[in-house]
Amino acid sequence: MVADDLVEANLMGYDSHGVMRLETYVDFALTGRVKSGSPLRIVKETPVTAIVDCGLNFGQVSAAQMVNIACAKAKQAGMAYIVAKNCCHVGRLGSYVQKVAELGMLGISTCNNRKIGHVVAPWGGREGRLGTNPLAFAAPTKGWPVVLDMSTSMIPEGKVNLAREERKSVPSGCIRDGVGNPTTDPNAFYGPPRGTILPFGSEYGYKGYGLSMLVEIMGGIMAGEDATVDQPGFNGFSLIAIDPEAFCGATLFTDLVDRLCAYQMSAAPAPGFNEVVVPGVYDFRMREKRLAEGIPVDDNVWNAVVGAARLVGITLQPDQL
Amino acid sequence: MVADDLVEANLMGYDSHGVMRLETYVDFALTGRVKSGSPLRIVKETPVTAIVDCGLNFGQVSAAQMVNIACAKAKQAGMAYIVAKNCCHVGRLGSYVQKVAELGMLGISTCNNRKIGHVVAPWGGREGRLGTNPLAFAAPTKGWPVVLDMSTSMIPEGKVNLAREERKSVPSGCIRDGVGNPTTDPNAFYGPPRGTILPFGSEYGYKGYGLSMLVEIMGGIMAGEDATVDQPGFNGFSLIAIDPEAFCGATLFTDLVDRLCAYQMSAAPAPGFNEVVVPGVYDFRMREKRLAEGIPVDDNVWNAVVGAARLVGITLQPDQL
Repeated sequence: MVADDLVEANLMGYDSHGVMRLETYVDFALTGRVKSGSPLRIVKETPVTAIVDCGLNFGQVSAAQMVNIACAKAKQAGMAYIVAKNCCHVGRLGSYVQKVAELGMLGISTCNNRKIGHVVAPWGGREGRLGTNPLAFAAPTKGWPVVLDMSTSMIPEGKVNLAREERKSVPSGCIRDGVGNPTTDPNAFYGPPRGTILPFGSEYGYKGYGLSMLVEIMGGIMAGEDATVDQPGFNGFSLIAIDPEAFCGATLFTDLVDRLCAYQMSAAPAPGFNEVVVPGVYDFRMREKRLAEGIPVDDNVWNAVVGAARLVGITLQPDQL
Repeated sequence: MVADDLVEANLMGYDSHGVMRLETYVDFALTGRVKSGSPLRIVKETPVTAIVDCGLNFGQVSAAQMVNIACAKAKQAGMAYIVAKNCCHVGRLGSYVQKVAELGMLGISTCNNRKIGHVVAPWGGREGRLGTNPLAFAAPTKGWPVVLDMSTSMIPEGKVNLAREERKSVPSGCIRDGVGNPTTDPNAFYGPPRGTILPFGSEYGYKGYGLSMLVEIMGGIMAGEDATVDQPGFNGFSLIAIDPEAFCGATLFTDLVDRLCAYQMSAAPAPGFNEVVVPGVYDFRMREKRLAEGIPVDDNVWNAVVGAARLVGITLQPDQL
């Protein structure tokens, strides 16, 4: 399941959530930070809600089980909202809401990060108090589902790290140095003193900050997790599934989402754009391209795969790619 | 109820949703576009969901009834999600989630606009296909609730209109002219040809666009409304209420939200800021100030109040302010 999710992330173009994670995942499993195979336990539930304890199993395994629980409840009761404790890194958030949409329902998901990952400053602050806190939703259409998968910060930390490695600058308006001044220098972010990533929205960053607070509340606090204390789990994951059968009906719902999409795409493109698409289209096109042509894997990532193999006693040669 | 809501919007500093709306509201009631006193009818419901038909009553009246329905269901079942048909202008969206938070629950709300209000372009487009589509949430604390009330566009149309009246420019990156080029000239927005407001997020506007699509789906489509056809209602309003008693417990929930807020506010301020606050604090401070000092009402707004009075045969003098 984890391998499938990593490869699927690569197929969709989310290389930062793809096989480059393998070495860390294997290391975490070997050192017990991830408890592979640990059963998921329902701590508390009603017909429409649940708190589950993921037992530090791989986040992909836990989140997939949560999708099943949420969708089963939503099919019965119209909707469901499930939150996790002790959940490890779930990977690409969009994959879970996509599964909900594939069942004809609306899926909404949030994911916070434990305290050690608080690299994002609150609006007006110069110290990290939030993770990059993504939120995602997906809705069914007759073709590809609409899928939005966005962080509530300007950029992910991975981009800052990559810029440092490549000796490049970060786009302006995304990071501050350790004393709070705007910078484009990734080294000024890493300090010391440590800098911060800004909340999404540039001069309107109070909106991204507010959305990030919502992610904390939905994905962490609702499960009883204290954001100010570092947790053994990595991600506070939450999932809402809504069955349109309880509302306007599933057939009409999908028809109307289709119409909404066609209406958006009918807008004349602005200068610099060739077309208007709906959220997710670029990702699904990338998936078709990579299914046909393969996934490009650079030397660093392949070395990480070789490193992961070595950790479990398997020797891979570079030319085995 | 409508008057209370308008004054409350002014108190909170949302003058664009305050008494300046009175003249339009009275006109709408007199001409039958708003059907004052029309009963709210539940079209379809389950213990956790409902579609209601607001019958074109004042949006404030309908939305307040929906808050009661959602909160009663959530207290029984753990959560609820209610959507509206034929709902008129609901005013300040934050006021409804705030009422949910005052009952110790998490409130999330969205509000779309009918087709005639599609002044916002999809990402990469130069024709309007979306409203300014706000979303809001509120969570309880021991003091003021956390309240985020944000549009998913760069700016509201009201700001463009105001800039035109005051012969000022609009901040850069917010609007395009009728052929899709960036502009700061409000006249270039009004055309003809008509321009567009950009989705929230500047060069990352695909995020605001995606959130706006979610608002369309949650606030319009789920109720069976077709976004591509102009509706008699003004706003597709939706409300989710979540009772933390079904999750970590109400007391712990409020404690943890308090801790999250204190943690954010403990961040050292960035240059140019005196403090870090949580969403809603500036609004509640404004409310205290205006309760003490009164609400400033400029001549244009007072003239609109006088005009509204005249429409129903009441003569107000300017010095009656």
